[in-house]
Amino acid sequence: MKILVLNCGSSSIKYKVFEMTTKQVLAQGGIEKIGLPGSFLKLTLPNGEKKIIERDIQEHDAGVQFIFEILTSPEYGIVKSLHEINAVGHRVLHGGSKFSASVLIDQDVINAIEECCDLGPLHNPANLKGIYAVQKLLPELPQIAVFDTAFHQTMPDYAYLYALPYSYYEKYGIRRYGFHGTSHRYVSKRVCEYLNIPQEGTRIITCHIGNGASVAAIKDGKCIDTSMGLTPLEGLMMGTRSGDIDAGALTYIMKKEGLSADELSTLLNKKSGVLGIFEKSSDMRELEDAVARKEERAILCENMYFYRITKYIGAYTAAMNGVDLIVFTGGVGENQTTARSGVCKTLGYLGVKIDMEKNKVRGKEAIVSTDDSKVKVLVIPTDEELMIAMDTADILKNRQ
Amino acid sequence: MKILVLNCGSSSIKYKVFEMTTKQVLAQGGIEKIGLPGSFLKLTLPNGEKKIIERDIQEHDAGVQFIFEILTSPEYGIVKSLHEINAVGHRVLHGGSKFSASVLIDQDVINAIEECCDLGPLHNPANLKGIYAVQKLLPELPQIAVFDTAFHQTMPDYAYLYALPYSYYEKYGIRRYGFHGTSHRYVSKRVCEYLNIPQEGTRIITCHIGNGASVAAIKDGKCIDTSMGLTPLEGLMMGTRSGDIDAGALTYIMKKEGLSADELSTLLNKKSGVLGIFEKSSDMRELEDAVARKEERAILCENMYFYRITKYIGAYTAAMNGVDLIVFTGGVGENQTTARSGVCKTLGYLGVKIDMEKNKVRGKEAIVSTDDSKVKVLVIPTDEELMIAMDTADILKNRQ
Repeated sequence: MKILVLNCGSSSIKYKVFEMTTKQVLAQGGIEKIGLPGSFLKLTLPNGEKKIIERDIQEHDAGVQFIFEILTSPEYGIVKSLHEINAVGHRVLHGGSKFSASVLIDQDVINAIEECCDLGPLHNPANLKGIYAVQKLLPELPQIAVFDTAFHQTMPDYAYLYALPYSYYEKYGIRRYGFHGTSHRYVSKRVCEYLNIPQEGTRIITCHIGNGASVAAIKDGKCIDTSMGLTPLEGLMMGTRSGDIDAGALTYIMKKEGLSADELSTLLNKKSGVLGIFEKSSDMRELEDAVARKEERAILCENMYFYRITKYIGAYTAAMNGVDLIVFTGGVGENQTTARSGVCKTLGYLGVKIDMEKNKVRGKEAIVSTDDSKVKVLVIPTDEELMIAMDTADILKNRQ
Repeated sequence: MKILVLNCGSSSIKYKVFEMTTKQVLAQGGIEKIGLPGSFLKLTLPNGEKKIIERDIQEHDAGVQFIFEILTSPEYGIVKSLHEINAVGHRVLHGGSKFSASVLIDQDVINAIEECCDLGPLHNPANLKGIYAVQKLLPELPQIAVFDTAFHQTMPDYAYLYALPYSYYEKYGIRRYGFHGTSHRYVSKRVCEYLNIPQEGTRIITCHIGNGASVAAIKDGKCIDTSMGLTPLEGLMMGTRSGDIDAGALTYIMKKEGLSADELSTLLNKKSGVLGIFEKSSDMRELEDAVARKEERAILCENMYFYRITKYIGAYTAAMNGVDLIVFTGGVGENQTTARSGVCKTLGYLGVKIDMEKNKVRGKEAIVSTDDSKVKVLVIPTDEELMIAMDTADILKNRQ
């Protein structure tokens, strides 16, 4: 079975094709600058080489068409005919409270995704464009939607509600939804396979730390809390996002600087976080280099970054009355040794002991705690596309 | 030595006179509705009876004058002459980064408090009015300022900075200051006296839970983190305040409802928290009654309220690499049995064990955990006025 996974942004489409029997990636690449000058498709060849093909791509339809061409082309193709593709799995950002699992797309599902556009105004419309494009080009091909928010739908009400007037929840659906759900689900499932233990009875804290970052508390395989909220702004300090901040500070800033709600949003989403404090970059690798050079502001920034993750681990441990596994994933979580040791520095009270040698691992599944650590700390590289492909294959099987 | 403690609000003045040798309260009361129709002074007589004396009081000068009259009156007086009062201690809300301890008031201090008016626009100007009134009436009397923020000035930079552009900290002083500092300081000091242990080497989490509420992490007698921030809005869910909330939710609400920064501030400070969810009241006693009647919304509200405190305790335990003492204080913390047991329900992983019998205590110093609880949980009724009086007496002694 071959599954095409699509992740459509407002001006980009990423794709991957999986052979599900082996979980092998047959093809991968992406289109960028859709509707902009200089649009192109970039693909990774089987030998790892990258190839860029420029073409004027005005809209998502044309983009998907281009991807289909490449997948069947004599030079780069992986199938003779598109009929060899069994289904398309789409990453969809926001499923609101409507979707707690992946679903086969039909008109009702499309309508429901439309209704969630208000909650994910940058992503949901783009996700829909990809769905429409495939529908138009291959109307018979089953399409599956996999939501970033779905995994978090098991949170109890006291964890997902904000202490606002209750009517805001009823009227606008203002509550914590959480994001990175596919990643938290993948690594929390995968870590139990890796350790050969059941999800049932296991308390896991998954730290997805990349440019965006979130933490989730997962008990018996179910998410009970997560740090991102109504939007992906809440929680940890991120590349350019502030994360948690006093609401009183926001109204203070708005008045001081005469900012509108949109301007405030831009400030908090694009100019804050690591970029705001470090000032030179939002990239954790550059920050790490500056820390190595003992730059004062870089050290402050890194301390802030780690400290917030540590506090979330502490909070979620309290929420679950203990923790068995702490999992690091995402670009930083998988690759940055100092991030893992920095975050776990003050977790000795839980019996967490990092093994400095094992912790040198980068981007590979590994236990990084000592054999006698009471809590196991692991690196599990995330694979959201594979998870989407697996969901898609599962739904397809149950349908047939 | 006799100390007068004043807590001046925008339309009220509370007072207490202490005899410092015995720490006895000689007189207490307050003026309300200053500048409003129906202003009055209410005092508590030695037998506990309350007495209300109506009088038109247009400004703080007249209010302080009235208090002085009462303190020396034949009927209710406790001194023959005001010269028997050795000093006045003032509660001052916001000391910014300028004050990390209580100080003798001189012109420089007044100027500095003035400069902090921007950070505490509702309270600092009122606090100053009280200081000016005493200065005018008894220019020779030493006055001492005790700041709500001072105790938290020992927080490390990575705990007090927000992940905003650094320039906002430099330009406007936007950072976490924390509040209830006098209370957190008092109970963290008092609990060590009570247990006869040194503050040095002890990790304490103090939960000041009243209509306003905050948690502090105190290591070796020094505050290292606290839940309130630039303003008293951040952190826990409170009577009418939202506490922590996704900044993205705020810009979303502003746009949906067309709110200005001031309107948003009112929503979050006055209409949220317990009132927002429970809807019937902001009072925890009424909430508790409704929970006893098994009202669904009340149960949700209480769960939210407790859960957030639990998470802060977890987070601060991680920040300090463990915890030795958890202290409850404030109206709810001192009196509500179910709040203490509810908050500690999932802290078994720390070795916290509540003794259900001992936990029935209300408003008295007591250990409420079992003898074999690894972490001691205590009730220590707060006494901010006594702390202010003690600071005042100390400064006076060192001055002489």
